[in-house]
Amino acid sequence: MSKFRVYYEDTDASGRVYHANYLKFFERGRTELFYKTKFTHEFLFNKFDIIFVVKECSVKFNKPAFFEEEINVTTKIDELSRVKIKFKQTILRASDLIAEAKVLVIPVKSSGKISKLHDELYFYLESQKN
Amino acid sequence: MSKFRVYYEDTDASGRVYHANYLKFFERGRTELFYKTKFTHEFLFNKFDIIFVVKECSVKFNKPAFFEEEINVTTKIDELSRVKIKFKQTILRASDLIAEAKVLVIPVKSSGKISKLHDELYFYLESQKN
Amino acid sequence: MSKFRVYYEDTDASGRVYHANYLKFFERGRTELFYKTKFTHEFLFNKFDIIFVVKECSVKFNKPAFFEEEINVTTKIDELSRVKIKFKQTILRASDLIAEAKVLVIPVKSSGKISKLHDELYFYLESQKN
Amino acid sequence: MSKFRVYYEDTDASGRVYHANYLKFFERGRTELFYKTKFTHEFLFNKFDIIFVVKECSVKFNKPAFFEEEINVTTKIDELSRVKIKFKQTILRASDLIAEAKVLVIPVKSSGKISKLHDELYFYLESQKN
Repeated sequence: MSKFRVYYEDTDASGRVYHANYLKFFERGRTELFYKTKFTHEFLFNKFDIIFVVKECSVKFNKPAFFEEEINVTTKIDELSRVKIKFKQTILRASDLIAEAKVLVIPVKSSGKISKLHDELYFYLESQKN
Repeated sequence: MSKFRVYYEDTDASGRVYHANYLKFFERGRTELFYKTKFTHEFLFNKFDIIFVVKECSVKFNKPAFFEEEINVTTKIDELSRVKIKFKQTILRASDLIAEAKVLVIPVKSSGKISKLHDELYFYLESQKN
Repeated sequence: MSKFRVYYEDTDASGRVYHANYLKFFERGRTELFYKTKFTHEFLFNKFDIIFVVKECSVKFNKPAFFEEEINVTTKIDELSRVKIKFKQTILRASDLIAEAKVLVIPVKSSGKISKLHDELYFYLESQKN
Repeated sequence: MSKFRVYYEDTDASGRVYHANYLKFFERGRTELFYKTKFTHEFLFNKFDIIFVVKECSVKFNKPAFFEEEINVTTKIDELSRVKIKFKQTILRASDLIAEAKVLVIPVKSSGKISKLHDELYFYLESQKN
């Protein structure tokens, strides 16, 4: 679970968090999951020429979040193969569900060609599934 | 169909448009659809206290768009009732499909309570369905 | 000093943090300074109808910051009167100076009219000067 | 002069355009100035390995711009040498001055090392000075 504050930059004229910005919070959650390991994005790019690309996402916006609130992002690996990772994520304010998302991410080379997850990363992610 | 240029601000370190920023382009497309009528967001807010809120969206990212490219956003009303509008949208670069989205939008009051589309706006949107 | 991670959303196609996004980090720093007190933006708005508006800023970009790095924002009150606050801020990566800014902020009412800082907030900010 | 619409994404909870987002509009103005020539950013990067980096900017925010308004960005080259370009820019809503900026941009290689403007680009920019 990763904790973030909502800043001015995240809101729009309706006073709420701008809908597209929730996707940024979801991505921060995924980044933190990788960052805790040695498989940082920088490591994956430099060692394996791997970039993660979002292929699909579906989001339900349940309640609005507002300026200065603290929100938590949960990130779970829902499905995993060598060529795709499906995440299930939520944004919570205390126990309130703000938004939930399913995000399909695939590894590609910097050329854009689909890549495969190497053993070490694959088994690490497998161990994180629940 | 609304035309936009991809600027630096839209890209990320992968060199592509950042995935969440496609949602901004989709919203610009919806805003332009309203803006062509007298039912601008400003008019709706001042006259009827209506804000449109995104409740759900699902997006497929097909091909990346890059810096300085020109993209087109298409916006169709797919389903319509007094309390919801479902849009079907695409982002194209020439004839290449970059991304497609389904976006469920609902009218709410500034208090956050669900509102209803007034006759005039409802029938206008109905006439735009295809 | 407030600590932040650089995420994908903050970068652009050059691989560096997008220049306008440093202004977001500077604002997060100012927000955190207020947030530590009871004078949160929410409190100021609800109790005194005060919004802080940036009137001027000048920024020097010294070194680029990159994806996944951790940066620190320092925020000092440089000049203070009842109708303006001048901040001096830096962004650091460890001891590297990434960017520095002078930011002039003024209190306005939600109508847009200039407001004055109330005693309690004024003396609190005065005590924070250095 | 480049024309843009203000969208939801550009605003914040104060109802105005978020201050950092004016920098995005200023950059769109500079990009359009280059884009009208053969010296697009893509061309400069592929042919000369040149990226333009913002080194300094100072901005005065005069009046707020609001959602759905149309704004114009003016972009002039104020100073020019082989290693720097100083722009003077304004954002206008009809004849209202919204913001003005001075922006110092330098050409660098993708390695980050300072580069020099090549004859053709230099003389083109020189001819644009006024």
